[in-house]
Amino acid sequence: MIDLRSDTVTQPTLAMRRAMAEAVVGDDVYEDDPTVNELQRKAAELLGKEAGLFVCSGTMGNLLAVMSQTQRGDEIIAGRHSHLVTHEVGGAAQIAQVMIHPVDHPQDWIEPEAIRTAIHSEDIHEPQTRLVCLENALSNGGIVPLPLLRQTYQTAKALGLRVHLDGARIFNAAVACGCSVSEIAACADTVTFCLSKGLAAPIGSVLVGDRAFIERARRNRKLLGGGLRQAGILAAAGLTALDTMTERLQEDHNHAKLLGELLAQIPGIHVEKERIQINMVFFKLCNDKIQPADFLKKLNKEGILTNPEDHGLFRFVTHYGIMESDVRTAAEAVRKIMEG
Amino acid sequence: MIDLRSDTVTQPTLAMRRAMAEAVVGDDVYEDDPTVNELQRKAAELLGKEAGLFVCSGTMGNLLAVMSQTQRGDEIIAGRHSHLVTHEVGGAAQIAQVMIHPVDHPQDWIEPEAIRTAIHSEDIHEPQTRLVCLENALSNGGIVPLPLLRQTYQTAKALGLRVHLDGARIFNAAVACGCSVSEIAACADTVTFCLSKGLAAPIGSVLVGDRAFIERARRNRKLLGGGLRQAGILAAAGLTALDTMTERLQEDHNHAKLLGELLAQIPGIHVEKERIQINMVFFKLCNDKIQPADFLKKLNKEGILTNPEDHGLFRFVTHYGIMESDVRTAAEAVRKIMEG
Amino acid sequence: MIDLRSDTVTQPTLAMRRAMAEAVVGDDVYEDDPTVNELQRKAAELLGKEAGLFVCSGTMGNLLAVMSQTQRGDEIIAGRHSHLVTHEVGGAAQIAQVMIHPVDHPQDWIEPEAIRTAIHSEDIHEPQTRLVCLENALSNGGIVPLPLLRQTYQTAKALGLRVHLDGARIFNAAVACGCSVSEIAACADTVTFCLSKGLAAPIGSVLVGDRAFIERARRNRKLLGGGLRQAGILAAAGLTALDTMTERLQEDHNHAKLLGELLAQIPGIHVEKERIQINMVFFKLCNDKIQPADFLKKLNKEGILTNPEDHGLFRFVTHYGIMESDVRTAAEAVRKIMEG
Amino acid sequence: MIDLRSDTVTQPTLAMRRAMAEAVVGDDVYEDDPTVNELQRKAAELLGKEAGLFVCSGTMGNLLAVMSQTQRGDEIIAGRHSHLVTHEVGGAAQIAQVMIHPVDHPQDWIEPEAIRTAIHSEDIHEPQTRLVCLENALSNGGIVPLPLLRQTYQTAKALGLRVHLDGARIFNAAVACGCSVSEIAACADTVTFCLSKGLAAPIGSVLVGDRAFIERARRNRKLLGGGLRQAGILAAAGLTALDTMTERLQEDHNHAKLLGELLAQIPGIHVEKERIQINMVFFKLCNDKIQPADFLKKLNKEGILTNPEDHGLFRFVTHYGIMESDVRTAAEAVRKIMEG
Repeated sequence: MIDLRSDTVTQPTLAMRRAMAEAVVGDDVYEDDPTVNELQRKAAELLGKEAGLFVCSGTMGNLLAVMSQTQRGDEIIAGRHSHLVTHEVGGAAQIAQVMIHPVDHPQDWIEPEAIRTAIHSEDIHEPQTRLVCLENALSNGGIVPLPLLRQTYQTAKALGLRVHLDGARIFNAAVACGCSVSEIAACADTVTFCLSKGLAAPIGSVLVGDRAFIERARRNRKLLGGGLRQAGILAAAGLTALDTMTERLQEDHNHAKLLGELLAQIPGIHVEKERIQINMVFFKLCNDKIQPADFLKKLNKEGILTNPEDHGLFRFVTHYGIMESDVRTAAEAVRKIMEG
Repeated sequence: MIDLRSDTVTQPTLAMRRAMAEAVVGDDVYEDDPTVNELQRKAAELLGKEAGLFVCSGTMGNLLAVMSQTQRGDEIIAGRHSHLVTHEVGGAAQIAQVMIHPVDHPQDWIEPEAIRTAIHSEDIHEPQTRLVCLENALSNGGIVPLPLLRQTYQTAKALGLRVHLDGARIFNAAVACGCSVSEIAACADTVTFCLSKGLAAPIGSVLVGDRAFIERARRNRKLLGGGLRQAGILAAAGLTALDTMTERLQEDHNHAKLLGELLAQIPGIHVEKERIQINMVFFKLCNDKIQPADFLKKLNKEGILTNPEDHGLFRFVTHYGIMESDVRTAAEAVRKIMEG
Repeated sequence: MIDLRSDTVTQPTLAMRRAMAEAVVGDDVYEDDPTVNELQRKAAELLGKEAGLFVCSGTMGNLLAVMSQTQRGDEIIAGRHSHLVTHEVGGAAQIAQVMIHPVDHPQDWIEPEAIRTAIHSEDIHEPQTRLVCLENALSNGGIVPLPLLRQTYQTAKALGLRVHLDGARIFNAAVACGCSVSEIAACADTVTFCLSKGLAAPIGSVLVGDRAFIERARRNRKLLGGGLRQAGILAAAGLTALDTMTERLQEDHNHAKLLGELLAQIPGIHVEKERIQINMVFFKLCNDKIQPADFLKKLNKEGILTNPEDHGLFRFVTHYGIMESDVRTAAEAVRKIMEG
Repeated sequence: MIDLRSDTVTQPTLAMRRAMAEAVVGDDVYEDDPTVNELQRKAAELLGKEAGLFVCSGTMGNLLAVMSQTQRGDEIIAGRHSHLVTHEVGGAAQIAQVMIHPVDHPQDWIEPEAIRTAIHSEDIHEPQTRLVCLENALSNGGIVPLPLLRQTYQTAKALGLRVHLDGARIFNAAVACGCSVSEIAACADTVTFCLSKGLAAPIGSVLVGDRAFIERARRNRKLLGGGLRQAGILAAAGLTALDTMTERLQEDHNHAKLLGELLAQIPGIHVEKERIQINMVFFKLCNDKIQPADFLKKLNKEGILTNPEDHGLFRFVTHYGIMESDVRTAAEAVRKIMEG
């Protein structure tokens, strides 16, 4: 099967497996796992922050970021289609108990003006605005221009707000922007990024920020049950991911562009070409001959795995393990189905 | 002072004061206050529901409606500018711990299509949609056409959702629609309406719905500290309000229309005339000669009380105690200020 | 019927009814109800605190005290049988999300040593201890000796903790102690006391403390739906209660003592005599001839109303409206039932 | 260093490292990691339950058990010194928002009578009792006799309650009891047990129960950020732990008994000998010559690592990697310090 559901399905590399087998480990709840400590130090350094914390998932990283920078009843500003709003089981409301002020923007960016409009006064009827949650790369496959990100950050800071960046795919964003991850991370007080997804580590994300924030997050991580023991096993794979997997993301981006071009030539397929900036291709069926559910089933029969359409769009994700030949095979399969 | 801040400032009538002084009361936590029981029965009957519960405020009624029809982590659909979303201190997230899926609509209506778009699948990443929160009359001074309200309700029910109506000003809506409150209430499973505001009772709202819901709400009311003792004092005023104050709301609406017309003739004032459907007039300053804060200060000096502008709009609210002469005085004061 | 269920069933006095009918009122959400403001000022003065806040009930006052002095996930120390722990629907956990560290003591006191034992270290596994919740008079009918209360307060302050006092019946405690309420209130940072219960006002309690605390509590009160409009109606009764009803509590205490003595002479009745310090008499049935449910039913037939036994004990509460003759009638009824 | 702080510090075995390096993995959020599925199946089978769920930690397992068997505002019954009450950062209150009714028992057991006393009526003032949380082996090093556990379970079920067992060290308990883990697990509806701790896997626990419960727990796990990707890496170590590490726990227990005997012979040391039933030895200093903090520092210098005393007791924990010689060395070190 060619699995295009997500880059979360990537298998660990041999180097990662070796690193895990040989990892020097300790009990990380006591903070004495040297490999975890090294990963946290390195991640913080790479992103230009004071400290880091290894967490089980991007969802946990984002939840900790919200819990550790707000109080019950505050309000946060976030993109309406951002992962934190749509795909994290409502944790911001259910666990962190904050209201979300969702921002609409055709390209899923949060612009400075949106923050100025959203922020609340001290009025007793209104929750207090505390935190802006940015996302880059975006869940929709796009990236935010760095100058806009900087302006947004400066606006938020001038208004006394904290800023968190969901950088699940920050390495993809950096490759697409042609900048360093620290330049993107400089546009936020705290950042989560994933070692799994495009970097192919089996498990885990890192949350970075200032030291006092990381200490609050460490306590909240224990609360959520995210305090692990010999976590160095996973951190070893994470370190290997940072050392060996960030450069190759350009390849996934190239594959996505190629895939977009091939699909765009198929009658009945509309590709959102301008959004192909990282490793995701969004497209929809634009004739009446085939229903989405049928299309999915037939794709599956052709050996191509993808998720059901979401709000009318299918998504193909390229990643480590997907070769140019897989891309061509997938496009051929779609052509075959559409030609009926 | 002519107080146009809100209809919440209304003073109780003499009949209400007499009723309160003479009320037969008991301990309502033991459910043996006869006046409370009578108010609850009467309110349920008027709105065509099985049972009613006297609550301290509209905010408490809405919060109980959400808490008693959702579980932690569910999602609710509500208008982005509805009172529940913007003016209830984030209680839906902070206390009921639900995500809000805010619906945008130029007229602040929730249309059936918006519900179909917003509802979530069973996907493990997404909160479950449980409740639609409608509002009528709207916070923006408008009302929702009854046929639309009906369609919205039917759509929600067909999708397995519960429907709550924030009917804080449902009697204003009924007057404006030329229908009964029970016709509006039939478009929801549960309804809150206010005895204070336009009906001029000093304190309290009533929540109505099916019996099982009201029992859950009663327990949650105790939890919030809303279990009162000799609440018949307040219920007596509420009964008087229902008996004597609903018909006269037309007068407030007429005053609002007159005020809108008078203001619209003043250079530099833009009145949102199409929105004057109940007892509220929204307007903005449309020249550069005067700043909103100055305008407010000068109004105050002229003996007119109103709230600071909100998102660029001032609001004047007519109510019991505001006469036609007050309306003319207020308009004159604005003219004087604008003519500088 | 002679209603001995609780002092919450007291009917407002004629003076209160007159005060309510004539009260000068305003919109208290805008903080411009003069009667509410006067009640809050007077209550704060009486208890020796900076500021006061009128709240709907003792449960709301205690919940606001916890919410406004802790953060989600903190721990509070409270007596295992205190009202806050046993009779407030779990609001401390459900709404304020704090752990309760319950203290056991044969007399339901919290002694300094218990605080020293309960307090947590900074360990990442443990919630942080923030608040001690005292109670005086106690739910069990007793009072805490003033010197012990002072020591407990000093210990808590030395350990960096805040202290709240549930003084629902603080006026009873003061009468029983022969001290002023401000002497008791000086043993806590914040205090709730009830205008209903023994003081016979129909509705309401007051929360007092420092100004910053009261501002946080005001916001939280709005959140819970406890922001009332023309609350001066109720505050007027509250002011009358403070002016006219505190002295007469000695009478209720005398009635309770008399009732205890009369009951103690009845075979088959065991009275907890040492606990009769305010207006409550606890007793149990100590022969096998009659079951508690039967006893309750027969009492009812004799015209005496009381609650079902709780943990093996019945409770009779004396209050405004219960005369010496009622006390004698009640004791006679019990004798008749026990003599079968 | 001889590390006696906890059995959480155990290093993975070579067999585990090999299993992790060679694990066949998939994306467990999509439920297609075969190694995770196998671990879950095997764990459920071993404990005699319908289904299992791999979770990041014992704390996460217990929190999910509470969240998935209660609603906000319910009450749970748990031992006052149980891990869930004292060492899980107050998650039951903060995240699951339940009140804890803590049970006291000299041996930290929960007896049937304690449940009967603790359970609440339907009274509107009281939270509803839903869940009993048992623990075996106990945090205090003891085990609960199987017949008592059975009676407690039957009592809870007869009262309509659900029962969760924190079986972090259930394999130790089974070894100490001479029974199977399924016999212990049969005394609860849901069970958490740890693969880390005595079984020496680096990370993870398993939660087992009926299928509907596990589905709710899976959703809540995602909410907490515990949805992992290629979790088969960790599951592979877990499977190895179940296959190879359960039998050898007797050795840890023998070492604990030996250690207890050696320490008991040292003047100034009081060992809680009757509590040495698994792999933990609790002792206190019983002369005035040395302060606990000094003792800890000196132990450390002698190459023995342990935690600071907790409520006056030190704890030594034996585990995989601690040999009989280490036990003797540790005892000698204590003797040397005490003999000063």
